[in-house]
Amino acid sequence: MSDEFYMNLALNEAWKYQILTYPNPAVGCVVLDKSGKILSIGAHKKAGFLHAEPSAILLALCEISDDFLHKFILNYDQKFNTNFLDISDKHELLEKLKEVYLNAVFTYDFIMQNHGDLLDGAKAYVTLEPCSHYGKTPPCANLFVQLKFAEVVISCEDKNKIASGGISILQNAGIKVKVGVLKQDGGMLLKPFLSWQEGNFSFLKVALSVNGAATGGVISNETSRAHMHSIRSIVDLLVIGGNTVRIDRPKLDARLVKNGKSPNVLIFSREQKFDESLPLFHVKGREVEISNSLLRAKKSPLVMYEGAQEFLNLAKNGALPNVKWLLLYQSSNFKNEPNLLSQIYLKSVFRSNFADDSYGWYEIV
Amino acid sequence: MSDEFYMNLALNEAWKYQILTYPNPAVGCVVLDKSGKILSIGAHKKAGFLHAEPSAILLALCEISDDFLHKFILNYDQKFNTNFLDISDKHELLEKLKEVYLNAVFTYDFIMQNHGDLLDGAKAYVTLEPCSHYGKTPPCANLFVQLKFAEVVISCEDKNKIASGGISILQNAGIKVKVGVLKQDGGMLLKPFLSWQEGNFSFLKVALSVNGAATGGVISNETSRAHMHSIRSIVDLLVIGGNTVRIDRPKLDARLVKNGKSPNVLIFSREQKFDESLPLFHVKGREVEISNSLLRAKKSPLVMYEGAQEFLNLAKNGALPNVKWLLLYQSSNFKNEPNLLSQIYLKSVFRSNFADDSYGWYEIV
Ligand SMILES: [Zn+2]
Ligand SMILES: [Zn+2]
Repeated sequence: MSDEFYMNLALNEAWKYQILTYPNPAVGCVVLDKSGKILSIGAHKKAGFLHAEPSAILLALCEISDDFLHKFILNYDQKFNTNFLDISDKHELLEKLKEVYLNAVFTYDFIMQNHGDLLDGAKAYVTLEPCSHYGKTPPCANLFVQLKFAEVVISCEDKNKIASGGISILQNAGIKVKVGVLKQDGGMLLKPFLSWQEGNFSFLKVALSVNGAATGGVISNETSRAHMHSIRSIVDLLVIGGNTVRIDRPKLDARLVKNGKSPNVLIFSREQKFDESLPLFHVKGREVEISNSLLRAKKSPLVMYEGAQEFLNLAKNGALPNVKWLLLYQSSNFKNEPNLLSQIYLKSVFRSNFADDSYGWYEIV
Repeated sequence: MSDEFYMNLALNEAWKYQILTYPNPAVGCVVLDKSGKILSIGAHKKAGFLHAEPSAILLALCEISDDFLHKFILNYDQKFNTNFLDISDKHELLEKLKEVYLNAVFTYDFIMQNHGDLLDGAKAYVTLEPCSHYGKTPPCANLFVQLKFAEVVISCEDKNKIASGGISILQNAGIKVKVGVLKQDGGMLLKPFLSWQEGNFSFLKVALSVNGAATGGVISNETSRAHMHSIRSIVDLLVIGGNTVRIDRPKLDARLVKNGKSPNVLIFSREQKFDESLPLFHVKGREVEISNSLLRAKKSPLVMYEGAQEFLNLAKNGALPNVKWLLLYQSSNFKNEPNLLSQIYLKSVFRSNFADDSYGWYEIV
């Protein structure tokens, strides 16, 4: 199989956590053993937790060595009061380790001390040049060196001055490095990160039935809405139109996510008076601003607009600052409701499914 | 990685050719070498041509041995006047071999005579029990035996009395067999085949903009339409509503496919008189019937209904005989046109993309 095949697996895994890694970039990593067998697919999931490379490396070591796996969960359970040892099925345990947020420092150190050269000669695919700086953990590039990887394939170089330099570290250690595989796709994955680094990334979220209706009650299924809530939990600001607030009376919280943080809200409205009993005013720890200006949205690094017809029209006319991407949730059900009307043309950036719903990131063209 | 991971690759490859293999079932196959490295992903593409297993095996042998690859294309070019030798890039050549319809008998025999035990100890994932009967070619099960595969993982057993027995052949030769991996998904893939074997498989095709409009000019992109034409080229009968014929004046041919066969058409209409200048009446080699009965559709093994609002309503009311599946093409563009209205609920069976368009098979629930 081609390098593109494996890089695509890494990219798809990274996309699952797009936005959720804020302020870090979304990154994915695939590890193959020296004979070319896929051992693991990992991603960076949340800032402050494991990077993509140690995530994939941990899973790879657990996959090939039951001793390593057992020792890791024994130590992790003791240190963090988790209950990994209770899961007896290996497949289930690996799924669990893939899904949870693991402590970055402990896991990195544990890998460094216990890898036992099990990945000697291995190959990795990473969507972004491995970091070379000491942040929460030492550099990921060092991991590949220490574990004696033979080759690292990279989609995009890191132009960030603090984090870049990973390629040199790898090459200086004699690791074969190939850069630029699915470079364009890797670049699209990085776009939100590069935008908020430059000051702002804004996008418009819309939820539709399969026949384009945005009205008539709940549209998306629970998995879609939980994903939406996890994004709400991460953004600096949620912008909503005054009419939507009045008609739909949304709460705009993150209740479907464990420890979800309700986002600050900007109600974009000429009319400044709103019924004080509206649910969104009564969510703990949130600020609400009512304004006919989007200045605050322009100044916040990560902003989500939630809307329907009104915001779609504004986006088409370029009246929502920096909104070039659309996040679309679409159910598989037809509704007996009229559709949103527009002539916006979209270019698909990434698409996937939440059970019968689909969701996707699109560029507005 | 789990068996499910590899079986999923085989299933996705098979779905690309759903319906197009008629009257054969859609089947996919993945081959790993003895160390677990993926060598190839193949599928059955068209009745009369290679089955999924020899397709994947051929690609696997070409992947690992340049000598085998060279000898194969040299012989194939000589025998069939193809020009594989002109393609110098190996990756491109493998893509080409994956894409074209290869002669079944020649390729099967070539593999049998030239495999050189290169796949000794290999592992295969097949979505359907390998065949055990002598059709155009000898049984696929024999291939695995002859090439000394160590293990074959199968999603669904074959209940067909003529083709089944593959598992026994494998087991009697000492090959490890695991059955039932992603059995439900494998079963969904087989459903159309099982239906037309019992007399009839019918489905409704709809094309929509992202906001649910089916009007206002061309909706789907060229790739979607070519796929649609390849399906038209395969079905026994295309059913269309009288109003659609009058208003849209469609030609309903298969011009976007090389050697595409224009389907026979049943115009479903109370009114029997149609303007003789309508384009669909002037397509070579086609029969057109105008009727207010769907009897002919019920009696044809493979039937596609193409429609919009009218057929959607009939499908919801169970008035289109045996129509339980919807084939939906959906573009990424919003249109300034009203949507189709319905309360049909759909369950996603398979979804994929054609560039910015998406398409999917759905069960009507
Ligand atoms: Zn890192
Ligand atoms: Zn066969």
